Amino acid sequence: MTPARPPANWLTAREALAEMRAGALSASALMADCLERWRARDGEVRAWTFLDADAAMARAEAAGQGPLAGLPIGVKDIIYTKDMPTSFNSPHFEGHFPNIDAASVAILRQAGAVMMGKCDTVEFAVNGRRAATTNPHDPSRTPGGSSSGSAAAVADGQVPVALGTQTGGSVIRPASYCGVYAIKPTWNAVSAEGFKVCAASFDTLGWYARSAEDLDLIAEVLGIEAVPAPATLQGARIALCKTPVWDKALPETREAIATAARALSEAGAELTELELPEAFGGLTEAHRVIMQAEMRSSFLADWRQLGEALYPELVSILRNERGDSRADLLAVLDLAAACRAEFDRLAAPFDAVLTPSAPGEAPLGPQDTGAAIFNRIWTLLHMPTVNVPGLTGPNGLPVGVTLAGPRYSDRRLIALAGQLGALLPQPRRPGGQASEEASL
Amino acid sequence: MTPARPPANWLTAREALAEMRAGALSASALMADCLERWRARDGEVRAWTFLDADAAMARAEAAGQGPLAGLPIGVKDIIYTKDMPTSFNSPHFEGHFPNIDAASVAILRQAGAVMMGKCDTVEFAVNGRRAATTNPHDPSRTPGGSSSGSAAAVADGQVPVALGTQTGGSVIRPASYCGVYAIKPTWNAVSAEGFKVCAASFDTLGWYARSAEDLDLIAEVLGIEAVPAPATLQGARIALCKTPVWDKALPETREAIATAARALSEAGAELTELELPEAFGGLTEAHRVIMQAEMRSSFLADWRQLGEALYPELVSILRNERGDSRADLLAVLDLAAACRAEFDRLAAPFDAVLTPSAPGEAPLGPQDTGAAIFNRIWTLLHMPTVNVPGLTGPNGLPVGVTLAGPRYSDRRLIALAGQLGALLPQPRRPGGQASEEASL
Repeated sequence: MTPARPPANWLTAREALAEMRAGALSASALMADCLERWRARDGEVRAWTFLDADAAMARAEAAGQGPLAGLPIGVKDIIYTKDMPTSFNSPHFEGHFPNIDAASVAILRQAGAVMMGKCDTVEFAVNGRRAATTNPHDPSRTPGGSSSGSAAAVADGQVPVALGTQTGGSVIRPASYCGVYAIKPTWNAVSAEGFKVCAASFDTLGWYARSAEDLDLIAEVLGIEAVPAPATLQGARIALCKTPVWDKALPETREAIATAARALSEAGAELTELELPEAFGGLTEAHRVIMQAEMRSSFLADWRQLGEALYPELVSILRNERGDSRADLLAVLDLAAACRAEFDRLAAPFDAVLTPSAPGEAPLGPQDTGAAIFNRIWTLLHMPTVNVPGLTGPNGLPVGVTLAGPRYSDRRLIALAGQLGALLPQPRRPGGQASEEASL
Repeated sequence: MTPARPPANWLTAREALAEMRAGALSASALMADCLERWRARDGEVRAWTFLDADAAMARAEAAGQGPLAGLPIGVKDIIYTKDMPTSFNSPHFEGHFPNIDAASVAILRQAGAVMMGKCDTVEFAVNGRRAATTNPHDPSRTPGGSSSGSAAAVADGQVPVALGTQTGGSVIRPASYCGVYAIKPTWNAVSAEGFKVCAASFDTLGWYARSAEDLDLIAEVLGIEAVPAPATLQGARIALCKTPVWDKALPETREAIATAARALSEAGAELTELELPEAFGGLTEAHRVIMQAEMRSSFLADWRQLGEALYPELVSILRNERGDSRADLLAVLDLAAACRAEFDRLAAPFDAVLTPSAPGEAPLGPQDTGAAIFNRIWTLLHMPTVNVPGLTGPNGLPVGVTLAGPRYSDRRLIALAGQLGALLPQPRRPGGQASEEASL
């Protein structure tokens, strides 16, 4: 009996591209399988704010040449796409349709990628209205935010790659909760032009995939330089950094870090504990002060236009109800800048820094999108971080770990993430389907 | 004999708004006078890439309420306007028409301002194709760049206020050459969302006007906080900072600084020379390294799309022909950050820092848009700078001086700029018309 061809939607990007180049798969067949998975699962997962299946198929059929020829990509709905609306998941921007592509979208299209649809997000990628998206592993739980739909769509096999953005923990946290690879690159290594600005000093494009190799493929297309990386974990130098907020780590996150550290050690890596200097203890509050100050600039047009119609938490920030002064802001801006240089120095002896991705498993309920507490410091510092999936918590739900590193070590982290990920269990496929790889 | 009413196009923004509020002037009469001046002078000054007179009149007739109700504003043609094309003065973007407003444009419209048209710019606000604009005081000379049309249109009485952007010296230098007031605010105090990104760490919206009070009016609408300022120059503490590039100052700039310093002293200000620490000598090169690294991100989409069709100097930067490394970049990023904190500390005892705006008078010819050498340091440091017009060089052409200050001292600098400007000769009106004020 000939086994049925496995559905192409579960292929990684590299696998799908290889099959397409070999003539064994067409862009439209790949898109058809992604759309079929979407149709089967959308009633539960609800990862998309906008998906026109006919238009997506038409784009696939017209796919151009390039390293990503025919690859479907999901786009967080705060990122502009000239052929689809961009609503920010805000009731005030329904049908909003900027007719331009974000720089990142333009680069990906130029490489042949096919934009499949827009992925749901927390309103303005900040707060307010939550994404309708559920965690693909358990619909009673959050996929995390704000890049909720991007992480869930990739985890659920609806699309091989999706774009998100991170200002606090909006790429890495959903990756941890949904059990996928993701990178939040070095700040400003990839253009942020063409998405709704929250805090210009922090906003960073990131992306999700089901393999580290896929993260690297997109990194290369988006212009992130290759850097040397250890070929194996044998002799790799890994720092274990519990961060100043380790007390926020639930047992499953402590266990995930310990398991990852043990796996790295057993593979021959040298593990060293890295304690951050006391000044780093101020960085979480620094992140809040800078983010909220920058939001008062970036949302001023919306504030003047919509005023109290904006959601209350945003209004409170725009009113500066905390009373942060410019002196407060300058103090933490300069602290952050000093800690950037200091972290680069501290991290220089290591190939990567192992640290939590999230406090634990995805919380219950749609309102609580989880805490960005383990991500804010790295976003503030402009450091790249990569989520490595595979481990799970007491409910069998994903618990990721992060590899961080100095600025511009992005692709070394991706390489090490792939090596670490290979030592961990394969992420379980949601929706009742066993992982093809795991069952082999 | 009753004197003819002077044309409203020469009113400052505050004067025009007061007349409109008093019912002595309508928004459409003001726009009509601006358009008449434009028609009379456009053959020589060529400040606009796009100006639809009927549409501008229609917008004036429909002007809404608010603190800027009916005020015409020119918009540099790298800033998005939902009702006019945005060409970046690039042959590759002719007819480019993003259907959204930049955040700053949205805020100004919300306040009742009327966008008059798009002002010419150096291609992408970087280099390449020059603006067709001439210096309104001498058509054989440059208005400066890259905000060429914005500065020239305000200087020439075609519009009371215009928006520009600065990544190196693109707001302050044209203001100096054309003889108008301008501010380059603290970085990120005003949203940069919605204009073509060059270097995200530096790009700053600025604006031009024919009085310091008008700069302040726009600053308030754009959300820059009021800060205490000396009521008079009596006892004001002014630092004189020759910067590490003083050797680039031509005799007329040295003379302008000396004249301004003398005027301030005679008005009772305390002048103190401020010598910057040696590390600041590296900031001009730091600016180049950071700007070019960020351009490689921000222009990657254009580079992939257009390649060698882009102009050669941009191609050279995008190829990184200088061979700047990421280590070079990180070193100067951290130097810049350290100097920001240090300059705030050094400037704290002073109300403002007097420093050159440009090497001298506007150079001859359309190709040489002049040097940003006296502006780059402040842009890199994120410090606000205000150009004060009134002085002139050996050819009778404008030579501005800059008041700089620590981050967020913007509106104190504007107040002091007005006090200093009142001590200097009134800027001459171009086009053969004597200044109304000067002739009184």
